[in-house]
Amino acid sequence: MSERFFLSTSPRDGRAVLDGDEARHLARVLRCAVGDTIRVFDGTGTEWPARVASIARDQVIVELGEPVCDEPPPGVRLTVAVALPKGERQKWLVEKLTELGTGRLVPLVTTRGVAEPTPAAVERLRRGVIEACKQCGRRTLMEIGMPQSIADLVGARHPGSWIVVADPGAPPLAAGAAPARGLAVIALVGPEGGFTPEEFAALDAAGIERVGLGPHVLRVETAAIAVAARLA
Amino acid sequence: MSERFFLSTSPRDGRAVLDGDEARHLARVLRCAVGDTIRVFDGTGTEWPARVASIARDQVIVELGEPVCDEPPPGVRLTVAVALPKGERQKWLVEKLTELGTGRLVPLVTTRGVAEPTPAAVERLRRGVIEACKQCGRRTLMEIGMPQSIADLVGARHPGSWIVVADPGAPPLAAGAAPARGLAVIALVGPEGGFTPEEFAALDAAGIERVGLGPHVLRVETAAIAVAARLA
Repeated sequence: MSERFFLSTSPRDGRAVLDGDEARHLARVLRCAVGDTIRVFDGTGTEWPARVASIARDQVIVELGEPVCDEPPPGVRLTVAVALPKGERQKWLVEKLTELGTGRLVPLVTTRGVAEPTPAAVERLRRGVIEACKQCGRRTLMEIGMPQSIADLVGARHPGSWIVVADPGAPPLAAGAAPARGLAVIALVGPEGGFTPEEFAALDAAGIERVGLGPHVLRVETAAIAVAARLA
Repeated sequence: MSERFFLSTSPRDGRAVLDGDEARHLARVLRCAVGDTIRVFDGTGTEWPARVASIARDQVIVELGEPVCDEPPPGVRLTVAVALPKGERQKWLVEKLTELGTGRLVPLVTTRGVAEPTPAAVERLRRGVIEACKQCGRRTLMEIGMPQSIADLVGARHPGSWIVVADPGAPPLAAGAAPARGLAVIALVGPEGGFTPEEFAALDAAGIERVGLGPHVLRVETAAIAVAARLA
């Protein structure tokens, strides 16, 4: 696949603008020239072949060819709501969930959580999603939701959605448990140290199904990735 | 769970020796003292409560309590044969495969592979397995096999084992495809850039089933982890 670039603004009249990191990467790292052919995508499912029309400081203008929008439909719209780990583990988590086709990542606010989902942190997550999409050929960005608590998530649940919570002691998430195509699934993954008894009580009271992910105590990002590998 | 330490030599007469990194970690990092209680495991499925009996330079002697050997049986004995990625991605791969219960990791020698499975590299992988086992509560080490080619793996296959190869273009590895408990499964994951046409021809000729892992082009470590999450 030829190099793919992300458009942060919508194309207009058959032309589009690359700016910021994308423009710098094209011009300075890859040393593309006017006339070179690349591919661009807007993160909503559409991708175009494109020809570099002009290169200025921090801004590249491209002329677009015929759009392609044949993103294969995901089996399930999966939201992973996870108490974010810190640093490198957070970065890994975003990359892997994006590759595996997760629809949405929601930073889960928990009692024992270690990483504060600040606006800067959320912006960093979004940047990670774009990088991973460019790398794996995904055209639709994984959405990064606003930080939510268990109560927020349970309160906003849609009828017909299936909510599960990863619990090291629970019966395994069975092969074949993946629901019918198109159904929305929300999977909750707690922080290192787990949910508190009060949090588990709230989850149980809301009828959230506990599912296990094997006999070992998984790290936060491993549990989230294992859920995505089985359900996304 | 209290701190767990790995025994590189077998216990004798109710006593065991911690050496090397394990002894240094106990004495210098955690500053344990004689009389402290820890847990030790030998990597073959047995774990003991233990009391620190003496601490010398680079050697700690512990007295063992009653062994526990109740490792939950894995559903499938999974071997992941993977063209190792480099650096951090390799380290991460080992950690995650261990957590997810993979039985054996075999460095796969391929035409386009980037990481040379030297003896030093294999030793580094083994150290990674021990660290991950300590962290996730696993008592039986993930085995690190000798580097093998496709021909080696196919030639050494046992009757009744199921061999699959991850192929981005293939039909998805279905939920419910996990075979009956106890069966040996070998999953092959190629290098960045994929297997060559010649390698795929050899795999096809040997009747190895191609399985897909979703619509995106997964990184090597992501593909290996996704396989383990579904089959281990």
